Amino acid sequence: MPLLPRRFDRIKSVLNRRMSNLTVLAEEVEKPHNLSAILRTCDAIGILQAHAVFKQSKIPTFNSTAQGSQKWVKLVKHPNIEVAIKSLKGEGFKIYGTNLNEQAKDYRLFDYKGPTAFVLGAEKWGLSQLATSLVDESIFIPMRGMVQSLNVSVASATLLFEALRQREKVGISPNSGEGLNTDLYNKTLFEWSYP
Amino acid sequence: MPLLPRRFDRIKSVLNRRMSNLTVLAEEVEKPHNLSAILRTCDAIGILQAHAVFKQSKIPTFNSTAQGSQKWVKLVKHPNIEVAIKSLKGEGFKIYGTNLNEQAKDYRLFDYKGPTAFVLGAEKWGLSQLATSLVDESIFIPMRGMVQSLNVSVASATLLFEALRQREKVGISPNSGEGLNTDLYNKTLFEWSYP
Ligand SMILES: C[S@@+](CC[C@H](N)C(=O)[O-])C[C@H]1O[C@@H](n2cnc3c(N)ncnc32)[C@H](O)[C@@H]1O
Ligand SMILES: C[S@@+](CC[C@H](N)C(=O)[O-])C[C@H]1O[C@@H](n2cnc3c(N)ncnc32)[C@H](O)[C@@H]1O
Repeated sequence: MPLLPRRFDRIKSVLNRRMSNLTVLAEEVEKPHNLSAILRTCDAIGILQAHAVFKQSKIPTFNSTAQGSQKWVKLVKHPNIEVAIKSLKGEGFKIYGTNLNEQAKDYRLFDYKGPTAFVLGAEKWGLSQLATSLVDESIFIPMRGMVQSLNVSVASATLLFEALRQREKVGISPNSGEGLNTDLYNKTLFEWSYP
Repeated sequence: MPLLPRRFDRIKSVLNRRMSNLTVLAEEVEKPHNLSAILRTCDAIGILQAHAVFKQSKIPTFNSTAQGSQKWVKLVKHPNIEVAIKSLKGEGFKIYGTNLNEQAKDYRLFDYKGPTAFVLGAEKWGLSQLATSLVDESIFIPMRGMVQSLNVSVASATLLFEALRQREKVGISPNSGEGLNTDLYNKTLFEWSYP
């Protein structure tokens, strides 16, 4: 089916607002509706690609909660958490682990305007010790209730909307393609236009 | 089983931070994991009770995503949306409907420090026309992606964390019981202590 001009314009305007320097890394987040809600939020924020590590041989599944966002936010799978974090560090990302332990700091204390990756933990266990030892900072979202944690997709949205808020405030959230380098822009435009 | 002193202290410290003047009203939000995540976020924010309208004869169900928050955030069920909104208005709440239509305004334009209720819509349809016509304001969370909407539990968390942020900024988020009147405080303390 040929690509309609209106569709192409829509695709371009969304791509113009994509950022390659903000992302999440999900460590064994397994429930389809959580993974789906996370990708859907990434799409809404303007994230180009998300990262994940899954339990051995687990293939991620999405459900209706994703609303097709898995087509617009590439999910990069890494063999294990160490490889994942090191590769993001290699690309210049500052790595923020989410943690409910004593060392973690209030997430509002940090500046997320530079290359930022939030590491999210499994529904049951949270972040692994290995992940915690590899991140640059441990952060948490203060809570005032009886329950000890937030749902992981809610936590990731809270962090991502804060990062976007900081960027919008100083006018650095992209709107004409400046969030991606030219090669990545063109490659993604082609993939999105001719899936 | 007798209530342990440590447990009682924990219950009191959470109750000391509860607010009766911030809430959500869910209109036919049906999926257990969405309803569960919404209540869990309400607990974390410090909301005393949430409100809902369900399709005829539907009984709300929660799943593991709730993590027991349904015990700590009372869900008040109303017979229909008109009764629900009118009763909240009668209690002095300003009613913000979430809407993706042309009339809706950016949620960051409003002040949520006074009595505030956010009305959330069904996963498939969003808010009913009737609800939209009854709210005081229609608001939306700006999105930058291909998908047309956020997951409803993510949207509610984004709004509630913004309301909390505004309140914390000016030091009016309660921490010693001032968010509830004495009767409500005592009644809730009793219910929480001897469930
Ligand atoms: C349900 S929680 C895991 C709970 C686990 N029992 C623990 O102690 O870490 C799943 C993930 O959600 C995120 N999360 C939940 N609550 C959070 C909070 N208050 N601050 C930051 N991240 C949070 C984290 O990524 C966490 O690993
Ligand atoms: C999946 S959406 C409903 C989508 C529906 N097709 C529509 O057009 O309204 C379910 C609910 O999530 C909330 N929601 C989703 N995205 C939102 C946004 N960007 N701003 C505010 N609320 C939103 C609203 O309460 C909405 O009724």
